[in-house]
Amino acid sequence: MRFDLERFFNPRAIAIIGASQDLATISGQPLKFLKSHGYRGRLYPVNPRYPEIAGVQCYPSLAEVPEAPDLALILVNAARVADMLRQCGAKGVPYVIIFSSGFSEMGGRGEALQRELAAIAREHDIGVIGPNCQGMINVADSVFAGFGSVFNADYDPGRVSMVSQSGGFGFSVMNLSSKDGGLPFRQMVTTGNEIGVSTLDFIDYYIRDPQTDTIVGYIEGLKDARRLLEVGKKALAAGKPVLMWKVGNTEQGQRAARSHTANLGGAMALYKAAFRQGGIIQVEDIQDVVDYGRAFRCGKLPAGNRLAIITISGGAGILMTDECIARGMRVPQLAQATTDKLQSFVPEFGSLLNPVDVTAAIFNDLSLINRTLQAIVDDPGVDCVAMINASLQGEIAAKIAGEIVAVAKKSDKPIFIAWSARDAAAPEAYAALDAARIPHYKSPVRCGRTLAALSWYAAARRKHEARRGEQPLRIEKNNIKQQLVSVTQDVTEYAAKRILAEYGIPVTCEELATGAQEAIAIARRIGYPVALKVQSPDIPHKTEARAVRLAIASDAELATAYAEVVKNAKAHQPGAKIEGVLVQEMAGEGVEAILGVTHDALFGPAVMFGLGGIFAEVLKDVSFRLAPVTMSAAREMIEEVAGYPLLAGARGKPRADMGALADAIVRLSALAVDLKDHVAELDVNPLFVFPEGRGVKAADALIKLVTK
Amino acid sequence: MRFDLERFFNPRAIAIIGASQDLATISGQPLKFLKSHGYRGRLYPVNPRYPEIAGVQCYPSLAEVPEAPDLALILVNAARVADMLRQCGAKGVPYVIIFSSGFSEMGGRGEALQRELAAIAREHDIGVIGPNCQGMINVADSVFAGFGSVFNADYDPGRVSMVSQSGGFGFSVMNLSSKDGGLPFRQMVTTGNEIGVSTLDFIDYYIRDPQTDTIVGYIEGLKDARRLLEVGKKALAAGKPVLMWKVGNTEQGQRAARSHTANLGGAMALYKAAFRQGGIIQVEDIQDVVDYGRAFRCGKLPAGNRLAIITISGGAGILMTDECIARGMRVPQLAQATTDKLQSFVPEFGSLLNPVDVTAAIFNDLSLINRTLQAIVDDPGVDCVAMINASLQGEIAAKIAGEIVAVAKKSDKPIFIAWSARDAAAPEAYAALDAARIPHYKSPVRCGRTLAALSWYAAARRKHEARRGEQPLRIEKNNIKQQLVSVTQDVTEYAAKRILAEYGIPVTCEELATGAQEAIAIARRIGYPVALKVQSPDIPHKTEARAVRLAIASDAELATAYAEVVKNAKAHQPGAKIEGVLVQEMAGEGVEAILGVTHDALFGPAVMFGLGGIFAEVLKDVSFRLAPVTMSAAREMIEEVAGYPLLAGARGKPRADMGALADAIVRLSALAVDLKDHVAELDVNPLFVFPEGRGVKAADALIKLVTK
Repeated sequence: MRFDLERFFNPRAIAIIGASQDLATISGQPLKFLKSHGYRGRLYPVNPRYPEIAGVQCYPSLAEVPEAPDLALILVNAARVADMLRQCGAKGVPYVIIFSSGFSEMGGRGEALQRELAAIAREHDIGVIGPNCQGMINVADSVFAGFGSVFNADYDPGRVSMVSQSGGFGFSVMNLSSKDGGLPFRQMVTTGNEIGVSTLDFIDYYIRDPQTDTIVGYIEGLKDARRLLEVGKKALAAGKPVLMWKVGNTEQGQRAARSHTANLGGAMALYKAAFRQGGIIQVEDIQDVVDYGRAFRCGKLPAGNRLAIITISGGAGILMTDECIARGMRVPQLAQATTDKLQSFVPEFGSLLNPVDVTAAIFNDLSLINRTLQAIVDDPGVDCVAMINASLQGEIAAKIAGEIVAVAKKSDKPIFIAWSARDAAAPEAYAALDAARIPHYKSPVRCGRTLAALSWYAAARRKHEARRGEQPLRIEKNNIKQQLVSVTQDVTEYAAKRILAEYGIPVTCEELATGAQEAIAIARRIGYPVALKVQSPDIPHKTEARAVRLAIASDAELATAYAEVVKNAKAHQPGAKIEGVLVQEMAGEGVEAILGVTHDALFGPAVMFGLGGIFAEVLKDVSFRLAPVTMSAAREMIEEVAGYPLLAGARGKPRADMGALADAIVRLSALAVDLKDHVAELDVNPLFVFPEGRGVKAADALIKLVTK
Repeated sequence: MRFDLERFFNPRAIAIIGASQDLATISGQPLKFLKSHGYRGRLYPVNPRYPEIAGVQCYPSLAEVPEAPDLALILVNAARVADMLRQCGAKGVPYVIIFSSGFSEMGGRGEALQRELAAIAREHDIGVIGPNCQGMINVADSVFAGFGSVFNADYDPGRVSMVSQSGGFGFSVMNLSSKDGGLPFRQMVTTGNEIGVSTLDFIDYYIRDPQTDTIVGYIEGLKDARRLLEVGKKALAAGKPVLMWKVGNTEQGQRAARSHTANLGGAMALYKAAFRQGGIIQVEDIQDVVDYGRAFRCGKLPAGNRLAIITISGGAGILMTDECIARGMRVPQLAQATTDKLQSFVPEFGSLLNPVDVTAAIFNDLSLINRTLQAIVDDPGVDCVAMINASLQGEIAAKIAGEIVAVAKKSDKPIFIAWSARDAAAPEAYAALDAARIPHYKSPVRCGRTLAALSWYAAARRKHEARRGEQPLRIEKNNIKQQLVSVTQDVTEYAAKRILAEYGIPVTCEELATGAQEAIAIARRIGYPVALKVQSPDIPHKTEARAVRLAIASDAELATAYAEVVKNAKAHQPGAKIEGVLVQEMAGEGVEAILGVTHDALFGPAVMFGLGGIFAEVLKDVSFRLAPVTMSAAREMIEEVAGYPLLAGARGKPRADMGALADAIVRLSALAVDLKDHVAELDVNPLFVFPEGRGVKAADALIKLVTK
């Protein structure tokens, strides 16, 4: 497959297969728009029915086109696409956009047709875009190769490039962002069902493209989802923010995605984990793209998450504070020196706290703004500043903008402005801010939301830098792999915990007994009290089968219990293969956690952490990361769950051993990577987390193997 | 105080006390703007320094003004405001706006000054607006009585009226909504510190105002918060949606609110409860006001929450689906008859599921839209319809708009349109939709969010109708009130549960013993096993004092335990007054819930529900309602918490007795109302909720009384 997409975006010649003389139809529009936007290369409509279309010579077949074009557009009926694609292969066309619908999004026959296209593309090394897409616009070079209403307009070229699995929505994002949002685009491509060049291929290309600063993506699902990590990290290293939609987050939304482009995603939780790990900024609406995109143009990133707010409208200041705090920023007290400075000129009915409210007194003394802004920018405890100018307009507005620009020029801290005056009411002020690349927003809430996104991204970049040196733990256990090769059933508790122990995860002290006397001998070695648990691959839920007894205190009690649990197990599942009865120490008091490994078809091995019982099962209060997980990422996973205060010492409990817990997560992630060809699912439930310094202990575990 | 605000908004004459000849300053602007917008009444600037201002005769004092104006504006320094307000009283001015700052928002001296103003207003029966506000605009009657940049513009009159505690932010909402948002306002008033006419007084007025259809409010806190319920219900009955911001939701935001207008709110949880109970729609940003306000103009409410989506862009359909599902709507399967109809004309690569994706094939066959829309509107399982037209523009757009209008006219189901074409690209289409009052939005996410708000409001109205007949339970227990009059300490478990029992809340079977022998006798009556709990108003946390023993199985065990718990209690709190030792049945297995009563200074009595332990304490997973609570509201409270699945039968547990739980909540709310002068706080923790049909039982309780 071809991934150097330079020629795709900049083709010297384009064939349009199935071009129509009716320029209003889907198959008529590409030629119309290529011409009307002044495409500078050569155009070859292909259709045996016409000698020419719109004054351009038309060819009866691709074979008769006098050169191999860099790009072919296929606009014929689904049934005829394979034939046309073969002709492209024969002709040596490197890139083909297949617009036609009627493939995997239809299911059944469509899926077979789509597989055929993929095979042809592979055979001829064609970079296929689509099928079921709306084409591409390269604004910078005037290549409008597609159809749709937004192709009617002309666009100013910008430095934002986008790839979208949805045509209609993707182009509307470009149209609204460029025109109404003041965020012009450079290149825009829609990928539909993605049998060839994928979203991540395009993002990878945009990272390399020197003219692209900001990258936008819309995805329903990625077939190569694990690459999100690698691509995200590349983008972080290149300093190019990636803004991305992941849609289909509800069951109904997923159903809709299936019948749209059939790009089935893994669980949303894994996408969120990958976004977090890859520093990819999740967006939810078009306005996010516009607002965040404009923010990144300022070229400054905050060194931390401490925001100072200056406002002439107290109300707007409160709104912004609420928004920023809810999104992880801090709005700290200012330094005493700063407050002292402010005190000398801010009216006494204003506020020197953060937000600093200079009040409407600004109308009577304009210099308030400049002096306040400078004092706050100089505060070493402030990483970025937001200034709220309410609806100031006209002459006073222009003056204030000038003051802001003067202060901003001398500082490398981002300064954002919330300014509600309409465009027409403060044109000079806005022009001055735009020229100085100072982001400004009509709504204080949007301004705060955007600052928080910038701050999140800055933190992701800092983490990326800090983690360059941090190597994930790698453990190789070939003996375990060999051992698992021949196993076909679930690996039950005892064996599963031996495997955990091999990767350095502490487990309960225990031995397998095959008779009551042996069990008693083991219990004496371990020391009472003990637990008894029947081990059978046919009984994954031991407690439900009443095949578990806890807190057995004596030989006599053990003997009776042994007989009972074995009897219960046999009654529960007649014919179950019983491997023995596990004699286990009672783990003692600790917070119950759950660790898990899943091997997702799209994402590969991932690790899950949650607190026990209801937290994970009822509240779905869990965190995910793709494996391998570093120590700092493991700590993040722990702090991310809502139940975290329980580990940190809520309700009078001692603080839990967070270091040992993070270490267990890291080791489990090493296991997940090492055994990725074997382990489909692994649950450690519960993992007891003891007070600080006393470690963790896996008290039960179960491994489901990949089907062989 | 005066609340018929007709003359406030429509004054026949206005005095401007402290008017300045410098028309750019705060005290100069009101006269300037009243004149420039063509105020039709009489104007009396008052300032001893000037004979005239801007051609209007100026008076040295209010006393010399030739009539008592309907409205006076006070623009003098804080220190002189009281004197001016007295002069207004002497003159018989019914309404006064105090613009000046420097009162309670400053704390200290400012608070005393503000109390003085309030006293003067009461004495002279003046309806005071402010202090610390920015005035009022009555667009409909051209009364621009205030200052600020937005006063420069002219506005078209609309049917939306707003009241805002913040001047700067409030006016920016009006300005942006009217001008850029296409949602013109009727009246707009800012209330600042609210010593007189309050936000709710204005909302109450707007409900009565026949020219206002939609009401908007911005609050930092309400001094008369409990009235939210009554005002909300009035608005529901009048069919006038109330959109409201409540800001200061974070600790930092609250701190900022304190130094802004010092309108301190109670807990956000109680505001949210009141909004829910009063059908008040919470908004978070200016765009919400614009989008929701435009939605309500359609004059149709959905009969349920079932949404059908028709789209030509699959991606936009998925986004809208995600948004609507997340906000409580349903996107159900269509009826078979509808699907059959659609099958006959939707392309086979489209989708007949909901969202119905007619695909870009629309370009080739325009009639697809009309036929699809009609078929879906006719589906009896659909309450409202959203149609997504991507970026369709020009001639085709106008035709489609015409088709939509034709279908919408004949249906009373709301039809919303997500249409991303820019205004300039589809002017005729948008004009046609506007004329037919069909709401349309550029973003499918915003369209979905708005539909969900409309649907939420429609449900609130249905509930309001349904609950007209539902009388809240009222219980009067004068004996309890008399009993509590003389009590000054906390009411401990035994006594507290006797009170609960009086209101019909089931409690554990128990008796108070004052000696071990008596305890044994009680235990025999109740039946073993029992619990022992030392009762002392000086030991609110019995468990921490080791003054509790559970599951005592015999006389001998009880005798020992009795001595121990008494000893522990005395050791824990030497000199503690010990009322006795409670002998209590062991409640048995049930889900642990928590019920609570708080008596909020602003909201009055409120009831809280949560699940036990970590749910309430760590996760803050609780629901609130202002008392009294009806049975249906109690059921809502139960279903609202995240841990609800635990009661509904998660993790293999039986379904809990929801009816008995709701009944206990209703009875507790009756207690909260009846004892509102006595009970400051009441906790039932835990309340055991047993499986269906087996009821609930309060196992512990504590009452804190109001300080006497």
